[in-house]
Amino acid sequence: MRGEIIAIGDELVSGRILNSTSRLAARRLFLLGYDIPIMQSIGDEPALIGKTLLSALERADFILITGGLGSTDDDLTTEAAAQALGLKTAKHPVVLEKLRQRLAAEGREGELANLSRFAVFPERAELLDESYRMAGYLLFHQDKPLWFLPGVPSQMAILLEDKVVPELQRLFPPPPLRQHIYRSCGLKEMAINAMLKPLEKQEGLQIGYYPIGWEVDVSLTVRPEEPQQGEALFQQADSFIREHLGENLFGEDDEGLPMAVGCLLQAQGKRMAVAESCTGGLLAACITEIPGSSAWFDGGVVVYSNSLKEKILGIDPVLLAEHGAVSEACAKAMARQALTRLGSDIALAITGIAGPDGGSADKPVGTVFIALADCNSTTVQCVHLHGSRREIQIQTAQRALDMARRHILFP
Amino acid sequence: MRGEIIAIGDELVSGRILNSTSRLAARRLFLLGYDIPIMQSIGDEPALIGKTLLSALERADFILITGGLGSTDDDLTTEAAAQALGLKTAKHPVVLEKLRQRLAAEGREGELANLSRFAVFPERAELLDESYRMAGYLLFHQDKPLWFLPGVPSQMAILLEDKVVPELQRLFPPPPLRQHIYRSCGLKEMAINAMLKPLEKQEGLQIGYYPIGWEVDVSLTVRPEEPQQGEALFQQADSFIREHLGENLFGEDDEGLPMAVGCLLQAQGKRMAVAESCTGGLLAACITEIPGSSAWFDGGVVVYSNSLKEKILGIDPVLLAEHGAVSEACAKAMARQALTRLGSDIALAITGIAGPDGGSADKPVGTVFIALADCNSTTVQCVHLHGSRREIQIQTAQRALDMARRHILFP
Repeated sequence: MRGEIIAIGDELVSGRILNSTSRLAARRLFLLGYDIPIMQSIGDEPALIGKTLLSALERADFILITGGLGSTDDDLTTEAAAQALGLKTAKHPVVLEKLRQRLAAEGREGELANLSRFAVFPERAELLDESYRMAGYLLFHQDKPLWFLPGVPSQMAILLEDKVVPELQRLFPPPPLRQHIYRSCGLKEMAINAMLKPLEKQEGLQIGYYPIGWEVDVSLTVRPEEPQQGEALFQQADSFIREHLGENLFGEDDEGLPMAVGCLLQAQGKRMAVAESCTGGLLAACITEIPGSSAWFDGGVVVYSNSLKEKILGIDPVLLAEHGAVSEACAKAMARQALTRLGSDIALAITGIAGPDGGSADKPVGTVFIALADCNSTTVQCVHLHGSRREIQIQTAQRALDMARRHILFP
Repeated sequence: MRGEIIAIGDELVSGRILNSTSRLAARRLFLLGYDIPIMQSIGDEPALIGKTLLSALERADFILITGGLGSTDDDLTTEAAAQALGLKTAKHPVVLEKLRQRLAAEGREGELANLSRFAVFPERAELLDESYRMAGYLLFHQDKPLWFLPGVPSQMAILLEDKVVPELQRLFPPPPLRQHIYRSCGLKEMAINAMLKPLEKQEGLQIGYYPIGWEVDVSLTVRPEEPQQGEALFQQADSFIREHLGENLFGEDDEGLPMAVGCLLQAQGKRMAVAESCTGGLLAACITEIPGSSAWFDGGVVVYSNSLKEKILGIDPVLLAEHGAVSEACAKAMARQALTRLGSDIALAITGIAGPDGGSADKPVGTVFIALADCNSTTVQCVHLHGSRREIQIQTAQRALDMARRHILFP
């Protein structure tokens, strides 16, 4: 069963907005066993919308169309699709009434005429959200389901889960597929590919390699020719991958680096704090993105300026004058002071040059010192990173977390 | 002149990786005056790659193809494209030699056979990076330029700027186009759309509306029928938009909220610090993403736990016991203490419930207190936000920055 996703919006093809909606849907559907060989983003052009939809209908068993269902003047999807499919459109009295009530509650009844486009649907459309707080409907054309969904990722995700997936599974029970993601830090993509070559040649297995900054994810997808072989195939490939990734493997599927570190700390009843300079809060933000991180993360300091390094962490101004803020000595001092002043069991400290300015012959952009202190020792690494300012900041945070992980696992 | 972008990679259509490469290219090209009506992401399927390329050739004047040029086994673009276009492929001796040298320098000469696919090109391909540190080449087919580029966004961006754009401008001098982005906080998208309706109806103007969390961006694109009318059209629309956005307009084009606040602070010679609880470092990270923020930003504290609120900021434990950490009183105290202890001119403090857990009837998930302190006063807002944990954290950071902006502009 092959589906396609068509995302509609000038903001996408002008590059103003990054299309994360299609990716969300593709990921969910892939993991359920559905192939989405083609995803498109097209502009708000009625003729183009129609042509794209009709071409997709020739290839795919089902289609998701996102975007252009709102009430602003650039929302043209319904009219364009109806025209292409030869359907009439009409205003839906219930949706119109709900819209009127909602506007009245906000004292904006006068806008009803402008917004009534929101309540127009093709004939035979089945609304997905009964209260129509979110736009979206299902249409069958030549017996193929076409789901028209909101462009906003969070809204699309809700309707996908609650409405699209159950109906899709009812119409097209998916073939067995198993996918597992192995997340690693410490090996380069090409090195991993070279190690896993034997697996590539096997029937029913597909291996993918995805570098994300310092992290490299490996995906294993098992689609056995004979369903009953699936489990054995998976286990064999799984062992092979684990053996070769070794201690570089830190997590699986959705277990990111912060979560991996968090689980290790929680298991030992320990807590961590951070002291950041060039990452400027990004390391703490990566950690606190995770619900429940308060169980092992106290917080930290963003000592972006030297004055704050002195004020909050008590770094010796003489040290700063002698070695500079971007130095092994400063990183060590930051980690030790953070440990003491923040009262945690482990402290990570980061100081470096994120760029694009600030580099020198001695310490080019991308030079970063990462220190880790606990009650027994303080260790420092110096790394040399490349890329944009944000890429350097992200990779630094990743390397700091991986350093903490290895320190806890292999003390 | 219309172009298309085809991104190739199983990781894209399985939703494993978010395709930011196509967006980067589309944005750059659009702002140069080129239309990209269709962007596609397709899987690593040779037949599909061929078909997609040939269909695009029927519609477009030029095509960018990204991804699948590496040396791992899932990199199939060159073979598939050559097959579809009826071209032979061959190993490029110079690239092969550079690859061999690079591997030898890393003691990895044995991998040359595996990686030699990296040096295979279609006949007549013009390499984009002479040193071939980055993959990429230009092919003309039926007089149409096809640029094959790396999938990695930062690499693609470099080749786009250095190689693709100059050649594109030489082949297809673009028509005059002017685009301007107006960035605002404080008005809802629908309200802005209603205000700007008169502009929508004008020939030669296109208005787009893009909500990004709490921010709403409005794009004005002017493509005059008569080129000489362009400037007048633009000025008239520009005035209309500015008048209606009023004080909600904080920046234009690439000037984000942090930069807007930074400019205002720098102009007054003032410095800011932050004290974050539920945003956990995200506010500081947004600010420090900007090069040069050290001119007005000292840093801050991430007092995620109550113990750190007491230890680092000196928040009274009695206050925490009485009002709780998520309270107006706590926010005010955090802002005032940050002002004093961090020695800045303005301090922002944030405390709230980012979710998904931690909410109550009194204080549901999304309840956030934002306080701003300077030498004259301390003010607090209570906001109620919706969405995922990260969405709530992002919107909180945006609202905090907007609060600072308005405070400086309208004291």
